[in-house]
Amino acid sequence: MIKQNRVTDLFKIQYPIIQAGMVWCSGWHLASAVSNAGALGIIGSGSMYPEVLLEHIKKCKAATQKPFAVNIPLLYPDVDKHIQTIIAQEVPIVFTSAGNPKKYTALLKDHGKTVVHVVSSAKFALKAQDAGVDAVVAEGFEAGGHNGKEETTTLCLLPIVKKSISIPLIAAGGIATGAAMLACFALGAEAVQIGSRFVASEEASAHQNFKQAVIEAKEGDTMLSMKKVVSVRLLKNKFYTELKKLEDEGASLHNQIAHLGKGRAKIGMFEGDLEEGELEIGQISGLIDKVLPAADIVANIWEEFKLAKQCISALEV
Amino acid sequence: MIKQNRVTDLFKIQYPIIQAGMVWCSGWHLASAVSNAGALGIIGSGSMYPEVLLEHIKKCKAATQKPFAVNIPLLYPDVDKHIQTIIAQEVPIVFTSAGNPKKYTALLKDHGKTVVHVVSSAKFALKAQDAGVDAVVAEGFEAGGHNGKEETTTLCLLPIVKKSISIPLIAAGGIATGAAMLACFALGAEAVQIGSRFVASEEASAHQNFKQAVIEAKEGDTMLSMKKVVSVRLLKNKFYTELKKLEDEGASLHNQIAHLGKGRAKIGMFEGDLEEGELEIGQISGLIDKVLPAADIVANIWEEFKLAKQCISALEV
Repeated sequence: MIKQNRVTDLFKIQYPIIQAGMVWCSGWHLASAVSNAGALGIIGSGSMYPEVLLEHIKKCKAATQKPFAVNIPLLYPDVDKHIQTIIAQEVPIVFTSAGNPKKYTALLKDHGKTVVHVVSSAKFALKAQDAGVDAVVAEGFEAGGHNGKEETTTLCLLPIVKKSISIPLIAAGGIATGAAMLACFALGAEAVQIGSRFVASEEASAHQNFKQAVIEAKEGDTMLSMKKVVSVRLLKNKFYTELKKLEDEGASLHNQIAHLGKGRAKIGMFEGDLEEGELEIGQISGLIDKVLPAADIVANIWEEFKLAKQCISALEV
Repeated sequence: MIKQNRVTDLFKIQYPIIQAGMVWCSGWHLASAVSNAGALGIIGSGSMYPEVLLEHIKKCKAATQKPFAVNIPLLYPDVDKHIQTIIAQEVPIVFTSAGNPKKYTALLKDHGKTVVHVVSSAKFALKAQDAGVDAVVAEGFEAGGHNGKEETTTLCLLPIVKKSISIPLIAAGGIATGAAMLACFALGAEAVQIGSRFVASEEASAHQNFKQAVIEAKEGDTMLSMKKVVSVRLLKNKFYTELKKLEDEGASLHNQIAHLGKGRAKIGMFEGDLEEGELEIGQISGLIDKVLPAADIVANIWEEFKLAKQCISALEV
């Protein structure tokens, strides 16, 4: 355990490792497994109806005594219901993303919640701090799923955000190992949020086909896409290729949205249709080659972090 | 000085810091200043006629007793003449980029040169190692200027390349501080190659207007562009905006090349036309806020590196 780390203190967790809330991949099973392993598990509510979120929270509480969190994309249509569920169910920690942190932070803080907001720039980090959040996640271009328009990579984003805020900085995007975690600490992060590595976990609710595709992915197999609609990093497949063709031809926003249609993310990540589905995953999937239990992932990252720290400490300068 | 670092041994330099060879920015004045400061200076030959390169090499030899290098983009039309000049002038180290390392590595090695090749993927890194180079520079998506199609960021690229090769790995893209240098060492790099930070140096041959634009650049002010022609990271300006409009409209390759025209890089970076010129710079320009002497840049990075190492070493885990 890191002594006197502001993030471990804030969340009351053993390791400064956070499992990202991910649509269709991170339900109660994954979140509770990660929390039980001493890190912070997050239920990704962006793919859940209000009654589904309620069920996941109840099951998560039954499966772990440790703190866990819920992630809410603030553009989600039922965000008010999700917030009320979180308050009623006494979930201690809320991660918000994809929206204005001013809208719900005060309400959540009034109910004693720890609030973290996900950002893609120093400008938004400062806005989140001003809105009263307890910490920010700075997520780089290499991250899977929805992503900032600025395309700033984690390596460039962290030091710029660190200079702009005084609250704790959590790094996200491109992190699947303890060595990368240490790299982020060198740049001022006090914790890391990890998505792709936990998609390839036994407890993730991702379809087996998608997990297999993630561990088979090589460098260059993901691409930031749909920049005119909403930037999202996808694993290249038939759906991606069709979309790319539309973009290259200068297709209108309307035509791109029409091609996206509805339910593509569910079809791909949850139902396992690797051709027609939208497969959201990070660039670092190229380094991931095995599906593991979530507890092993946490333990491995922590051991790698300590080893990387020893290697750096041993440098003679 | 790092003891027993393979890169400092290879180049016979004091610090494992390399100044990137950059068109219109890194002539003899910058290269010799960097080498005299104990790092490795590089003359960027991609913007030089053969007789200009000869002049820069002669001036560099007169200005420093320390090792320096020349960078050659292998797609450069006069590459054979450049190679002959390097051999005749006994330049000890050659960095090659943008082309097939098989073509010239054996010739250069036969003449006793240390050869390094710049890559954007593990696949190309392995090809470079097989071609006999002494080290590779792995350059991420955030780097300025020409860039890989895979869009792999430095944080994701380094561990994948490290796994693939046994020769030394030099990190590039997104590095302007000693903290970022340490982050790259955590990911397996044994040295860093730094571009943007040295553009904003007193000795860079970049136009004063361009240097000023670099130190004024904020996050989100650069973008990877011209992906259909040849991917290049540019500072956003009038030229970039026009180009982006063409791309968004699905303009043909022919029309994009026609808009690029000739001499845009010289007009922008060397002559200082910030509207019509092509301004190649890295994402990390958002963190750079002062033009400094090259020797101060080297010294600052090294002090920051040592400080970051101390901070990491002091973590209680």
